[in-house]
Amino acid sequence: MSDAPPFRIGLLGRGTVGSAFETLVAERAARVAEITGMRPEIVGVLRRNEGDFEQILAESDLVVEVMGGIEPAREYALRAMAAGRHVVTANKQLLSHHGEELWAAAREHGVQLRFEAAVAGVVPVIRVLSESLAGAHVDRIHGIVNGTTNFILSQMAATGATYADALAEAQELGYAEADPSEDVNGKDAAAKMAILARLAFNTPVHIDDVVCEGIEHLTADDMAYARELGLGLKLLGTAERVGEDRLSVRVHPAFLYGAHPLASIDGPFNAVTIESQAITEITLSGPGAGGPQTASAVLGDVISAMIPPASTPETTERLRIEQDVESAFYLHLEVADRPGVLAQIAQLLGLQGASIKSVVQQGLGDNARLVMVTHPLLESRFFAACELIAGLDFVRARPRAIRVIDEQFTA
Amino acid sequence: MSDAPPFRIGLLGRGTVGSAFETLVAERAARVAEITGMRPEIVGVLRRNEGDFEQILAESDLVVEVMGGIEPAREYALRAMAAGRHVVTANKQLLSHHGEELWAAAREHGVQLRFEAAVAGVVPVIRVLSESLAGAHVDRIHGIVNGTTNFILSQMAATGATYADALAEAQELGYAEADPSEDVNGKDAAAKMAILARLAFNTPVHIDDVVCEGIEHLTADDMAYARELGLGLKLLGTAERVGEDRLSVRVHPAFLYGAHPLASIDGPFNAVTIESQAITEITLSGPGAGGPQTASAVLGDVISAMIPPASTPETTERLRIEQDVESAFYLHLEVADRPGVLAQIAQLLGLQGASIKSVVQQGLGDNARLVMVTHPLLESRFFAACELIAGLDFVRARPRAIRVIDEQFTA
Repeated sequence: MSDAPPFRIGLLGRGTVGSAFETLVAERAARVAEITGMRPEIVGVLRRNEGDFEQILAESDLVVEVMGGIEPAREYALRAMAAGRHVVTANKQLLSHHGEELWAAAREHGVQLRFEAAVAGVVPVIRVLSESLAGAHVDRIHGIVNGTTNFILSQMAATGATYADALAEAQELGYAEADPSEDVNGKDAAAKMAILARLAFNTPVHIDDVVCEGIEHLTADDMAYARELGLGLKLLGTAERVGEDRLSVRVHPAFLYGAHPLASIDGPFNAVTIESQAITEITLSGPGAGGPQTASAVLGDVISAMIPPASTPETTERLRIEQDVESAFYLHLEVADRPGVLAQIAQLLGLQGASIKSVVQQGLGDNARLVMVTHPLLESRFFAACELIAGLDFVRARPRAIRVIDEQFTA
Repeated sequence: MSDAPPFRIGLLGRGTVGSAFETLVAERAARVAEITGMRPEIVGVLRRNEGDFEQILAESDLVVEVMGGIEPAREYALRAMAAGRHVVTANKQLLSHHGEELWAAAREHGVQLRFEAAVAGVVPVIRVLSESLAGAHVDRIHGIVNGTTNFILSQMAATGATYADALAEAQELGYAEADPSEDVNGKDAAAKMAILARLAFNTPVHIDDVVCEGIEHLTADDMAYARELGLGLKLLGTAERVGEDRLSVRVHPAFLYGAHPLASIDGPFNAVTIESQAITEITLSGPGAGGPQTASAVLGDVISAMIPPASTPETTERLRIEQDVESAFYLHLEVADRPGVLAQIAQLLGLQGASIKSVVQQGLGDNARLVMVTHPLLESRFFAACELIAGLDFVRARPRAIRVIDEQFTA
């Protein structure tokens, strides 16, 4: 197939992913020609101080955007689509802020906007949601969609390391950036969950709709108690229907029981579980990031764009975003061990509708610790109870709360 | 979208999957119309003694084949494609015997032949292999692709039940048929692995190319020793490159180390791991069968067929099928406990190039048991050693061997 006509790709950005994509296209061009009848070829690369967007656009059949950030990526993607070019992007920030504008542009100009690489790298969750499950009624998505934090939490669990030490190790191994803020504060995962929620629930979701809590406050201590309770700690993204017309999208640390399909996902991996009554649940997992992996997801999208297909349909649902949902909680209290302590705490929790599922008590005198797991209740009510508990005179430190995903993970 | 034009579906077969598909189409027609602009509608159903194929064909835009078996399913699929109809099938027997003929017909007539439901139910492995990874160089696939046997093995492991008892329980719960032969002898899994191997390695694979061993001979005893060695037992399908131009496709019981992504797949579930240097590995898992699940996979294919796309490209590789590959083995021996027994066995193994990784010895006198795990070696050489060991006068029963998948599951 060396006589196959060329399919011309304009590449915007040449960092880790862009370079890996160049290598991959060179390696796999012959195979892609066998599949599609056209030979992919990178005809122009836009770098920080090199290359001209207009010229690249004029010479391309398709534009790959891996520069990241919102501007000028947004402007370039819009201009490429307006000029009739398909766009493949790995840009989660762009899509979680301006997705509807971009998808509308794709529909308007009859081109494709593909973005598998924006969420969970080579784990094909975008394709599965938009194609395999296009006709399904999705009830819930759970995702570990940030490899950096999953590595840090796995290390803390496996070695008893502190958050700071595990982060330092992640940085040493290249799993975390020098400035890891966007990963550890949950914002990276929030952007990805906004994109997944939009596809699964067919309703507009902006990154600002996502309730978000990071992992910076977790301690080795929490891990140790969790082990005693048979739980594993993950930075978990959730998108789920609440009632008929509401949607909750959130990212926060959560304990999972061992039987949960995401509980065994360790290290810098990503995994997503999609629940729907008709299918029970399916789980997809794999490496979440890395240049070659992300480049492989980009190439899969490029091939699909070379063969006809569909653009992302307009959203037709208008679900309300729900911020307050029911969760079970792990609650860690440092208390003076006096008579009636547990009773008073249980009473305050009970007033808010929280009932206790299990309790572990450790230590004596002024250094006692109470670790408990509650049954699910509205988060606002649980936090209200925590405020009251924090004010009790025998409570020695700020209560620590972490959500627990129940064994009953299919609703 | 109630004014959307109809998209007419002819349904061949109305067993568990066919009925579930009818229900699902009725439930999801409005959503499908939003996505595709056309409203799916079942215009005719062919049952054993009811309906006329020619009439159904004449009135349909697409034919769904869920009747099973080879004839007349093959004839109907070929005639439907010759008449310009897309075909969606859940028929693994048909595709593993006559896939190349059917895919060629689809290409010749410019129609689509889709078959997600033929392998692993709603787990979207067909789509991921043929679309997301279309351009990837796959090194290996591991799959648990038969839910019945996975349920039986999970029960044996969890409760210490015998094979016969676990099978009876599976039948009671509806996870196994009254005649479970095709499941427990590995033939069902072999058909599915032939289909996966064809897609992943782009080379023709017939079900008769698949080396196949069932689970009927496994004992509760094997399970108990396995636990001691930290292993879990699965009916594992494997398709992998051997050298540059050979391919091994096989189904057999195998022990997995706890860290393997398939080790935690318990109950009537399916899961597939796809390994490729560029992507490391991705794992897909979910319910393997059941009417609603399979129907959901069929509907995903119907929607994709309603929107343009690509047909399965012709195979361009011609890999030789390799029957003899390297495996590590668990070997269970009942021996008289005399001096020099282990030395003689180790020597016989050593002559064939087998070295022992770990040994557990139990019992004394005439009832001693030796359970060992070897490092990987060519299966033919291991079995030759077993024959010699079986002939030793102190070996009391036929040696039992089960393959072990090494912790180094990425090549």
